[in-house]
Amino acid sequence: MNFSEQSTCLAISGGVGGAKLALGLSRVLAPGQLTVIGNTGDDFTHLGFYISPDLDTVMYTLAGVNNKDLGWGQAGESWNFLDAVKRMGGETWFQLGDRDLGTHVVRTQMLEAGKSLSEVTSHLCRQLSIEHELVPMTDDPVATIVHTRSGENLAFQHYFVRDRCKPQVTGFTFSGLDVAKPAPAFLRALQSPSLVAIVVCPSNPFVSVDPVLKIPGVMDAIGSSEAAVIAVSPIVAGQAIKGPAAKMMAELGMPQTALAVAQHYVEQYPGKMQGFVLDEQDRPLRDEVEALGLSTIVTNTVMVTLQDRVDLARVVLNFSSEITSR
Amino acid sequence: MNFSEQSTCLAISGGVGGAKLALGLSRVLAPGQLTVIGNTGDDFTHLGFYISPDLDTVMYTLAGVNNKDLGWGQAGESWNFLDAVKRMGGETWFQLGDRDLGTHVVRTQMLEAGKSLSEVTSHLCRQLSIEHELVPMTDDPVATIVHTRSGENLAFQHYFVRDRCKPQVTGFTFSGLDVAKPAPAFLRALQSPSLVAIVVCPSNPFVSVDPVLKIPGVMDAIGSSEAAVIAVSPIVAGQAIKGPAAKMMAELGMPQTALAVAQHYVEQYPGKMQGFVLDEQDRPLRDEVEALGLSTIVTNTVMVTLQDRVDLARVVLNFSSEITSR
Repeated sequence: MNFSEQSTCLAISGGVGGAKLALGLSRVLAPGQLTVIGNTGDDFTHLGFYISPDLDTVMYTLAGVNNKDLGWGQAGESWNFLDAVKRMGGETWFQLGDRDLGTHVVRTQMLEAGKSLSEVTSHLCRQLSIEHELVPMTDDPVATIVHTRSGENLAFQHYFVRDRCKPQVTGFTFSGLDVAKPAPAFLRALQSPSLVAIVVCPSNPFVSVDPVLKIPGVMDAIGSSEAAVIAVSPIVAGQAIKGPAAKMMAELGMPQTALAVAQHYVEQYPGKMQGFVLDEQDRPLRDEVEALGLSTIVTNTVMVTLQDRVDLARVVLNFSSEITSR
Repeated sequence: MNFSEQSTCLAISGGVGGAKLALGLSRVLAPGQLTVIGNTGDDFTHLGFYISPDLDTVMYTLAGVNNKDLGWGQAGESWNFLDAVKRMGGETWFQLGDRDLGTHVVRTQMLEAGKSLSEVTSHLCRQLSIEHELVPMTDDPVATIVHTRSGENLAFQHYFVRDRCKPQVTGFTFSGLDVAKPAPAFLRALQSPSLVAIVVCPSNPFVSVDPVLKIPGVMDAIGSSEAAVIAVSPIVAGQAIKGPAAKMMAELGMPQTALAVAQHYVEQYPGKMQGFVLDEQDRPLRDEVEALGLSTIVTNTVMVTLQDRVDLARVVLNFSSEITSR
């Protein structure tokens, strides 16, 4: 790998897809070389618990305790709490496993004691023996709102979990974003002179990546950085590997293609993105993506095995070195 | 049984011992005939949950879902939440089972939504198909404080669970008691013209029964009632069936006997108590208890089987009828 041991990488991640690449990156980079930024626009309070679904997915994945069958939550999970809540007439639309709940309770306690979400995340990661840095995009409250064709605006988890992504989306807003600040370690990583790669993981562009990149100050810091900004398409052969990204694109009147993802990033963040990673299945789109002004590589981006994750991480890091050394 | 179907009974209960007799009473009385009052001096907030140990023990017992091995919590319990909290570096001295947690979370949610503890308890009991009435002693915050020989004052659960009753006690106070009101259904049951029996269950006199009886207004209502007030000794043959009552008596300089329990009640509530129930093993104490001015019966009070609970309930109810018909 031609990514120097003195170089650092910042990865921007939503849930499952992003966590897979983050895990790959953590296997090829030393702890001091990688900062993973987790989307917190999906965070919400439920049954009195502060829940950070994306941070938890990344955290559990990095710690190797993620539930591979479900794609969220912890391995070896039990559901007696939820069963009891149901019996007691409480809300059960959001699945909370017994082990997972330990995370939410400790996090909620620490936040109520005045710790920042960054501090709490750092503490939880330490407890799980995670050596790489996982940082929430912001310590301020930001909430993704899903606008729907019926006119109803839905809190993200109501759209995503309760309503199972059924409502047709017309757009998104991020409540609180305009006054949010990047988390201190996020800004620090962005401003580091050793930063060579900013990797936009294969996560949902609208509800996982946009909230991170639209935090005031983030684009300015990216603009001042020498690092290459590279996005990995979450759409492969017209489908989202996981989640509602493709469905959202159709409802928003966009083609369900990796090209449309690249176009979205170029339009939203003009002049800021340098590289794009297409899956082998989307090789025919390469010239069109290049025509948007993005250096483009084609590789396997469908991460089934751990080796797939590591391989993609290496390809992306090498790609960033190539771009920055031009 | 000569306890009329038109008569009602009010039972005052702490945890395990009281719950056993409450269960017996619930098997011989129709739902409209029995109100069980649970001590809430042990209630506390832990990990953000409002926890009512005595109410829960009675509730789980009446619902038949109590954990008979532990003596608290629910049957078929799992501990993955607590395991996760431990891993995340949270407090684990108070054992919270996964199922049990469902109760605490729903209760906490409802209290935060403005429901009273009475309303919440009633809701939880309905969900568990409990037909008899379980009522907290008060909807106001009351906290039992344990004064110890070291000079330290301990919140009850810190004394009871965290410190395993090891500190030597010198006395008790009940923070908030002076401004607490009896729960509406408690007062209603006390003032009912059909009330024939007020049963002080075999619970800890100092930390389970006293907080209930010392709520302002309770003794006046008892004084105005025609009902017989009968206490069942929690001390049998010099030992507490369960819990620290005997140890506390020794530390307070009292003999560890059922007689001393009777003396405590007579001194604390002069002229209010009419009957006392001694275990067969304490038959020799009968004359001395009678000499305190209490009608006394001797029976088996050690409730091992369900039949023991039912039998003791019948004996106590018959005893109350006898006293009131004199």
